[in-house]
Amino acid sequence: MTVLSPVSPLEDIIAIVGVGLIGGSLAAALKQRKQVRAVIGVGRNRQRLEATKEAGLIDEIEVDVSVAAKRANVVVVCTPVDRIVADVRAAASSMQPGALITDAGSTKGVICGELADLATGPVTFVGAHPLAGSEKQGFESASATLFEGRVCVLTPLPQTPVNQVERTRRLWQAVGMQTCQLSPEEHDAALAYTSHLPHAVAAALAAALPEEYRRLTSTGFRHTTRVAAGDPELWTAIFRQNSQSVLAALDALTHRLGLIRAAIIAGDEPSLKKLLQQAKTDRMALDASPASSAD
Amino acid sequence: MTVLSPVSPLEDIIAIVGVGLIGGSLAAALKQRKQVRAVIGVGRNRQRLEATKEAGLIDEIEVDVSVAAKRANVVVVCTPVDRIVADVRAAASSMQPGALITDAGSTKGVICGELADLATGPVTFVGAHPLAGSEKQGFESASATLFEGRVCVLTPLPQTPVNQVERTRRLWQAVGMQTCQLSPEEHDAALAYTSHLPHAVAAALAAALPEEYRRLTSTGFRHTTRVAAGDPELWTAIFRQNSQSVLAALDALTHRLGLIRAAIIAGDEPSLKKLLQQAKTDRMALDASPASSAD
Repeated sequence: MTVLSPVSPLEDIIAIVGVGLIGGSLAAALKQRKQVRAVIGVGRNRQRLEATKEAGLIDEIEVDVSVAAKRANVVVVCTPVDRIVADVRAAASSMQPGALITDAGSTKGVICGELADLATGPVTFVGAHPLAGSEKQGFESASATLFEGRVCVLTPLPQTPVNQVERTRRLWQAVGMQTCQLSPEEHDAALAYTSHLPHAVAAALAAALPEEYRRLTSTGFRHTTRVAAGDPELWTAIFRQNSQSVLAALDALTHRLGLIRAAIIAGDEPSLKKLLQQAKTDRMALDASPASSAD
Repeated sequence: MTVLSPVSPLEDIIAIVGVGLIGGSLAAALKQRKQVRAVIGVGRNRQRLEATKEAGLIDEIEVDVSVAAKRANVVVVCTPVDRIVADVRAAASSMQPGALITDAGSTKGVICGELADLATGPVTFVGAHPLAGSEKQGFESASATLFEGRVCVLTPLPQTPVNQVERTRRLWQAVGMQTCQLSPEEHDAALAYTSHLPHAVAAALAAALPEEYRRLTSTGFRHTTRVAAGDPELWTAIFRQNSQSVLAALDALTHRLGLIRAAIIAGDEPSLKKLLQQAKTDRMALDASPASSAD
């Protein structure tokens, strides 16, 4: 890992709201790379926060978002998608003019839409989605290297000041990420395919397996269904916020499954082989794209 | 890894037909654990066989199955499922009475049905399926530890002599596997869910992804689709040989996906959350079952 040479930190005080896997990893990465003078961890459970501080991930703890935000230059909201808007509002209410709020939510359309007024306010919100994580939860699974080599999608609105977009970009780059920029709607259409659809498919597959066959699973089944172990509450909120794009992606998958099914029923081996060859080619193309380095 | 103490080897000469990922790993494991005096590698491509011998995986090479089988006490056929019957026949034609043939095919109904006469012949065939492997191919990916802690399904017929079943069991146990016994039909019904369905789903998902979204995939998408990189020819043959069970499993998956889809359309969050919770519980139960130790 490259630790930057001792220059002045990127930001003075960063408050991270929701110090679980993502928030905890961000705190750890910022501290390890000396990109911040202090990290305030914000959460609802004081005991969990104390443990997070014990573990060395954060410097200070706070249960009230607006109290922490008042002292922070930047607030990063890492709570579940259905709590992000409220947490951003609470932070914005107390921050100094010029301050920045960003998030790590898996959906962007609803969140950035509801917070559109903060694109141009004295306090700016810039949506972000670091494409990193796992089915695990809690700061115990946090890692300072979680973001390295991964892609972070920034979703500013057309009216968002470019200096705050750049500041957000530098923040995520400072923990090792490559960044790209999409509209919130483009983000949601893409993530429906790359993340939300795989979750639905993995969940269906995991639940379809008759219990008596569990002992006959191998790594193939386990890898294909890994993400199904993710938090149901969190994923229910993601599916709700991105329902239209998820339904479109589900239809595309169902169509593809239907082609495979029809070829099997017809005993049409050339077609079946062609479908599987296309899938193999498509899958192998992923290993050539950026995020694979951290895969 | 536990290397057994220097006792006499389990078998004198074993011929392995098809020295790719599975055959190569079996050869490596048998030799490393000193369970055989010599391994003859059998294949159609002499140059590849020479390279396999160079790599130290096999002791001798042979392009003619029956020539190799004539000298072997045991033949293990590790070729694609649509070539196993012919390779077993070629081996059986030249082996001594009392000799054993087993295989590593991913389907068992068609193979064991067509070879039923060899359940009671002077040379015995006992079907087997070691639940280990990956989407990779070729002896270059072989590993002496591939089978450790994994399950091998044995599929003898009712009339198969028990001593030959036990001999087959000892062979696969000797490379670190746990064994269980099912009828060929039970095996195919189970593997349709645990292995063949995940492949169909991963292939559909990989092919459904629009190319422009590739850079926005993370480990979730990559894990869920990993097996789609498997050999299309091999998988076409598997789907053909197990078409009825695969179609039944596809229907079960489609039903589950339909439940998730309906809950999203209806905005029925309690139902959606319940479906995802069930999937999470089912997925996590896998980590408690035997094969997980090697996962």
